[in-house]
Amino acid sequence: MMDTILENRTIDMIAAHFKTAPHKIGRIHEADAEIVDLGGGSPHYLAVTTDALVEEISSGLYDDPYFMGWMLAMVNFSDLAAVGADPLGLLLSISYPMNGDSRFAAKLARGVSDACNKLGTFVLGGDTNQGGELLLSGCAVGLVPKQSVLTRKGARAHDSLYMTSRAGLGNVYAFLKLGRMRFLPARSFYKPVARIKEGRIIREFASSCMDTSDGVIHTIDTLMRLNRRRFVLYGDWAAILHPIAYRVCRAQGIPAWLVLAGIHGEFELVFTVSPQRERPFLSAAAETGWTPLKIGEVCEGQGVSIQGNGGATPLDTAAIRNLSEQAGSDPQAYIKRLVQIAQESGIA
Amino acid sequence: MMDTILENRTIDMIAAHFKTAPHKIGRIHEADAEIVDLGGGSPHYLAVTTDALVEEISSGLYDDPYFMGWMLAMVNFSDLAAVGADPLGLLLSISYPMNGDSRFAAKLARGVSDACNKLGTFVLGGDTNQGGELLLSGCAVGLVPKQSVLTRKGARAHDSLYMTSRAGLGNVYAFLKLGRMRFLPARSFYKPVARIKEGRIIREFASSCMDTSDGVIHTIDTLMRLNRRRFVLYGDWAAILHPIAYRVCRAQGIPAWLVLAGIHGEFELVFTVSPQRERPFLSAAAETGWTPLKIGEVCEGQGVSIQGNGGATPLDTAAIRNLSEQAGSDPQAYIKRLVQIAQESGIA
Repeated sequence: MMDTILENRTIDMIAAHFKTAPHKIGRIHEADAEIVDLGGGSPHYLAVTTDALVEEISSGLYDDPYFMGWMLAMVNFSDLAAVGADPLGLLLSISYPMNGDSRFAAKLARGVSDACNKLGTFVLGGDTNQGGELLLSGCAVGLVPKQSVLTRKGARAHDSLYMTSRAGLGNVYAFLKLGRMRFLPARSFYKPVARIKEGRIIREFASSCMDTSDGVIHTIDTLMRLNRRRFVLYGDWAAILHPIAYRVCRAQGIPAWLVLAGIHGEFELVFTVSPQRERPFLSAAAETGWTPLKIGEVCEGQGVSIQGNGGATPLDTAAIRNLSEQAGSDPQAYIKRLVQIAQESGIA
Repeated sequence: MMDTILENRTIDMIAAHFKTAPHKIGRIHEADAEIVDLGGGSPHYLAVTTDALVEEISSGLYDDPYFMGWMLAMVNFSDLAAVGADPLGLLLSISYPMNGDSRFAAKLARGVSDACNKLGTFVLGGDTNQGGELLLSGCAVGLVPKQSVLTRKGARAHDSLYMTSRAGLGNVYAFLKLGRMRFLPARSFYKPVARIKEGRIIREFASSCMDTSDGVIHTIDTLMRLNRRRFVLYGDWAAILHPIAYRVCRAQGIPAWLVLAGIHGEFELVFTVSPQRERPFLSAAAETGWTPLKIGEVCEGQGVSIQGNGGATPLDTAAIRNLSEQAGSDPQAYIKRLVQIAQESGIA
C-alpha cells in the first residue's frame, strides 16, 4: 500500500539495509518523528526527527535567510508536534559557501532563534561547514508521555477527521513565489508556526495524527494508506482553506482544491478522533481558546474521496503524490498537471 | 582563549543569536556532544550531536559511497563516545542529485549499516532529498549516566594525558589520498571505529575527554584552552603514531609530527586522568584487554609543548589550527605550511 508512492520506494530501498532498532516504537512511515524507548522505566519516549531544506532553496522558493532559519526550525518542530512531543531543542547542521558573508549567517541565526523563542524552546548546538552549496539541516529532540504518544496509525471507521486550523497558505506561497504571480508580497502572509501547543491537547484524545508539511492531500493519503480506511474530505473549500488562500485562488483563477494538493504544505496537524472522545476533546480545546476544524470523516473501505453536494468523488491521490517527484525540477509543469488531474476528477 | 581560533569565531557569531537552554549542561565548545537534562529525576542525560560530511566529499577525500556511509555514522558516534554515552541510534539526512543511481544509495546505506552493527547500534530514521550536490548529515542520540558524564573540562595539573590508541591514520589517509602519493591503497588501512566501548570505561575515571576527529594537536589545543593548563605531549612519535602512519611518514619523508597536526583525524579519544584514579583506571581497562596509551601530562601554566630529549618545546597550536581554514581549498599549500611551522618550531 505504502509502496505505491514513489518517494516511499526510495526511502524503503535505503531502509532495507538497516536492522530494526528494538527500542524504536512503530515502523518506518508510521510517525512524523522517530519514537524511542529510553528504557529504565522512564515515563517518556524520546521523539527525534531530522529535516533539511534542499528543494525549497534550490528551487528559489526560500531566498531570504531569516525565512530559511524560521522554516528550518519549524519544519523540524512540526514533526515533534505531530507525535505530541514537548521539544527539548534543536540541533543545526549548516553548510555554506566560503564567500558567504556573515550577514547571511546572522540573519539565518535570527530566524532560527525567533522560531525557537516563539515555541518556548532552544537551539542546543550544531555543526558548521564550508560547502559549495548552501545546505541547512536540522534535528529536533523532545519528550512525549508514553501513554499519550501520537502516531499516524490508529484511525478507525466513524472517527472524525480534524485539522488544527485552515490550510493552503504553504501552496499559495509557492504558487505566487514560483509562478511569479506577485500581486501581494508572498512573505507577508506566510510565517507558519509548528502546532506544539495544540499537539499537547491532541495527544490526549486523537487516534492518529500527521502534519501537513507536504500538503493536506498528501497527509490524508498517507493516513488512508497506513490505516486502510476510506478518508472522506468535505469539499467545502471556503471553510477548509485559509481566507487568504481562498481569496488568492479566486483572484488568480486557481482551483481552490489545488492548494491542498500541492506539496508545499504548512504546519497544521491533521488528526482523527473517535466519536466517544470528540466532546471532551472539543471542550479541552475550547478551554485554550482553540477551535479545531472538522474537515471530514473516516469510513469503512479504502481510498480518499471528496464529499460534495452530489456525493463523494474518489480522488487518485497516488497520481497526485507521484507528480511531486517532478515538482522541484519544473514547478510550472507540476502545477499544470495538478490542474489537469483536478479537472479529470471533476473536482476543480 | 577559545576565540583565538578562527573556526570558533564563526560558531560563536552564530551562537550569539541563541538563548542558552536552561536544561543544557555546560556551555558552547565544552563537550563533543550536547548534554541535555531530561528532567523528571532521570538518572541519565541525553547526549545528542550532529555532524555532516562536507569538505571531506567536496575535496575528494571521500569518494567511495560505502566509506562515506561508514564515516558518517562513526563521526557522529565518536562524539557520543567522547561524552561517555551509550548510543540509542542515528538519524540520517541525505541529499543527492536526481541523476544519482540507486547503487550509490545502496552502498552508502550498507556503509552506515555496517558501522552501526559494529557498534551494536541502529539507524532510527532520516530524511532524503533531491539536491544538486551530494550532502550527508547525521545526528546521533544516546544516554549517559549523570554521575559519569564526560566533558572537555575538568583537567587539572598533574593529571596524566592518555589516548585510547595510537593515532595518525586519518591524516596519513588524507596525505596519500589528496597528495596522490598512492604507494599503498589508502582505503585498506583506514576504517576507524568510534570508541564507544572504551568511552564506557573512561567515563568512570577521566577528568576530561575529547575525540581526535580534527587531529590530535587540535584536540590537545582545545583541552588546553578550556582547562587553562599547560599540556605537555611526549615527542616519542614511534610510540604515539600508529605503526602504519609511522612507516608511511618515514617512507615518504613526511615529518611524523605532521600526522598529529593535520585536521583529518581519526576517532581516538584523548583524555586526562588524575593521579589518584590512574591505577584503578588502568586495571579496569586491562580487564577488557585494552591498554590505554599515555601520551603526556597536564602541568601548571598554559600552552602546548612537545617533550623531547632536550626538554619541552612550546608549539604555536593556534597557528596550526587556523591554517586549517584553508585546508579544504588547497590541501597542498596547507601541508606545505604545516611542514614550515614544524621546522620553525624545531620539532620536525
